[in-house]
Amino acid sequence: MNTPKIRVGVIGAGFVGSALVQLLSDESRQIALVDAATASIEVVGVAVRDAQKPRPGIDAGLLTTDPLELANREDLDILVELAGGIEPARTYIEAALNRGVSVVTANKALMAECGTALAQLAHENGADLFYEAAVGGGIPILRALRTSLAGERIERVMGIVNGTTNFILSKMTSEGSDYCDVLAEAQALGYAEADPTADVEAFDAAAKVQILSSLAFGTELRGEEIVREGITGVRSVDVDFAHRAGYVIKLLGVAERVGEDGISRRAHPAMIPEDHPLASVHGAMNAVFVEGTKSGPLMWLGQGAGGEPTATAVLGDVLHAARNRVGGRHDVPFSVDDRLRSVPAGEISSVFYISIDVMDEPGVLASVASVFGTHGVSIQSMEQSGFGDEARLSFVTHSAITKNVQATIEDLAKLESVDSIGACLRVIDGGVA
Amino acid sequence: MNTPKIRVGVIGAGFVGSALVQLLSDESRQIALVDAATASIEVVGVAVRDAQKPRPGIDAGLLTTDPLELANREDLDILVELAGGIEPARTYIEAALNRGVSVVTANKALMAECGTALAQLAHENGADLFYEAAVGGGIPILRALRTSLAGERIERVMGIVNGTTNFILSKMTSEGSDYCDVLAEAQALGYAEADPTADVEAFDAAAKVQILSSLAFGTELRGEEIVREGITGVRSVDVDFAHRAGYVIKLLGVAERVGEDGISRRAHPAMIPEDHPLASVHGAMNAVFVEGTKSGPLMWLGQGAGGEPTATAVLGDVLHAARNRVGGRHDVPFSVDDRLRSVPAGEISSVFYISIDVMDEPGVLASVASVFGTHGVSIQSMEQSGFGDEARLSFVTHSAITKNVQATIEDLAKLESVDSIGACLRVIDGGVA
Repeated sequence: MNTPKIRVGVIGAGFVGSALVQLLSDESRQIALVDAATASIEVVGVAVRDAQKPRPGIDAGLLTTDPLELANREDLDILVELAGGIEPARTYIEAALNRGVSVVTANKALMAECGTALAQLAHENGADLFYEAAVGGGIPILRALRTSLAGERIERVMGIVNGTTNFILSKMTSEGSDYCDVLAEAQALGYAEADPTADVEAFDAAAKVQILSSLAFGTELRGEEIVREGITGVRSVDVDFAHRAGYVIKLLGVAERVGEDGISRRAHPAMIPEDHPLASVHGAMNAVFVEGTKSGPLMWLGQGAGGEPTATAVLGDVLHAARNRVGGRHDVPFSVDDRLRSVPAGEISSVFYISIDVMDEPGVLASVASVFGTHGVSIQSMEQSGFGDEARLSFVTHSAITKNVQATIEDLAKLESVDSIGACLRVIDGGVA
Repeated sequence: MNTPKIRVGVIGAGFVGSALVQLLSDESRQIALVDAATASIEVVGVAVRDAQKPRPGIDAGLLTTDPLELANREDLDILVELAGGIEPARTYIEAALNRGVSVVTANKALMAECGTALAQLAHENGADLFYEAAVGGGIPILRALRTSLAGERIERVMGIVNGTTNFILSKMTSEGSDYCDVLAEAQALGYAEADPTADVEAFDAAAKVQILSSLAFGTELRGEEIVREGITGVRSVDVDFAHRAGYVIKLLGVAERVGEDGISRRAHPAMIPEDHPLASVHGAMNAVFVEGTKSGPLMWLGQGAGGEPTATAVLGDVLHAARNRVGGRHDVPFSVDDRLRSVPAGEISSVFYISIDVMDEPGVLASVASVFGTHGVSIQSMEQSGFGDEARLSFVTHSAITKNVQATIEDLAKLESVDSIGACLRVIDGGVA
């Protein structure tokens, strides 16, 4: 029997690209690939910036410095895009899709920016567009949402989808350290970039939320801004308070239904109960927690970054696309639900933790409490701590509408007895038995 | 456009079957099914024992008391088998597969008994055979092993795959209660059967290990006996010891590579470190932990039982089979790796916890220790507790070969100073950062 060859081109040979090419060249894995797909996979080209640089494990004859030419190769079946960024990655991908070549990418920013259009383009040309590695590194959550949970009505998806911030917050929790010290340590260890903005200001998590939401609910991927708050304001006193109250602070990506046709998509730090499965996701691990109407709670956990775990996710996509090629078919793209509307952040209800630095003098609590009352924000518990310059009031509210909490914060900041607003974090309730 | 209809027959209308039929009849879910599969799904028959019994949510006109006739219907596309047990379930499934009808089942016992033959029969007839609900209830782990991880070399799969025993062990841990008391409570709550043998003696977990192993490694499903130890011997003193040492006791299903071509498949209680992700899986929850060479650790968590979660898994399979039908194709079955050999239990190395009840008299420890030494089992730590009739020695060994530990236990039992062997549990090492 003549087994068909599936020809793969790879753009980018960094950690992920190199690991992928080596996996695809691994004899022992080829057996699994061939048996399962009744075909063999061959890497026909690897586009890199510098073709002179030695790349162990990659045949030098495969290297090219012209990614667009690779994307346009006549004999290509699958293009793997690992360059990242919007352009020129988008040009390469569109070139391939336009010719019916399936595309596998790890490019979360690009998918969040124009995933709807690219998925449509793939479908029109009978090609696949897979991007499992764009969310949660090696965790196969996207395929599960596409297939196993396709018949389920999902109510909420919450993920720890950024390893850098989870490393930082985990360290702050376990060691009581300050944000700046831990950030410096994370940078020294290579867990955080020299410019950590994309991670610590939750741009990365926000893009991943958009991708998760599109598969869980059918929201569009067309570069919409979603609610985004970073972790730079989280202080060790907040971590302490959370611990005493039975919570941990995590940067969460959240997408959830609000009422019949509303969707709220957000990325922000939040307090979650210590017995919640997400609370025990430490260090650079990632996890995605899905609540379905019928399935109940489900969680996926794994390594959110790293060349090899990410390459595994890319490999799973390549294999799926290869099997589809052999069968002369492609997967249907995610379906957009036109009825859904994005609910403004201010309209969402949540429990909040609010910590304010105050003057240590009589009557402060009364004036602060009256501001909460004016805006209809009901207080569940209050803790007074520190003395003198360090005096602090920490509140946990009952469930309140976000815009009322925001107005409360604004008015509190105007009080003479208030030095500064320390933190305002959402509190996620509900553990799992 | 004329959308094709996919005709589904369901055998069994218990909790899972009823929930499934209602999900398939749910208008809001039909939209997702139709959009995604470009087809609609219709339930054409539900086989039950008693067609007179009122079944809310199921059209009485669909009911039949002849499952074999349903399986043999000319117009059937997919048969869902939820009757359980080996026969007559096997006859129904074979009848359908022989005619090219795809089969979805939750029948773990049947799959463990003759899954290889049934998968082959399905493949020969161009039909699908899916059984996601057979392991981990609503957790979509089997499809992930088939697809996303198909290109990965998996080293070990460890699962908490039996909710009843996890409920019992969790209660024993959180309340310090004895096994018999908690079993009675579980039976009163409906979490354990009147005859709990299948659960507490790990028959259920063993069948699930075989299914996980077939997809993770390519082992056969043909009714082989695998290593199986129940939880009836776990005492509250063992739970206490585990806690003090930083461990929890869980009933684990384990399938792992041993050397180049060996596989060990086992179901037994084990001590796992408190910071291992599996340690925080409480109550009736299930979880499967997978260690891949490149992916690193991955974990899936969710509800392991219950009509609705299980029905969600069955629905995912029905949907996948329906999409395949519309596309005129079927998935390739798991591939058997002929080189693999089952490694006898005695050859496996592990750290062990051994607790023995002894006479409270001088010289006991010396005689006990000499037995360990004779069999080359090295002791990592020892704890002496209790007095008089309650005196007890608890050991944790270094990694030792199981048959040497078994020989040690046999010889220990012969010592005059030893009253009885209390427990002998494997200790799983290695948490996840």
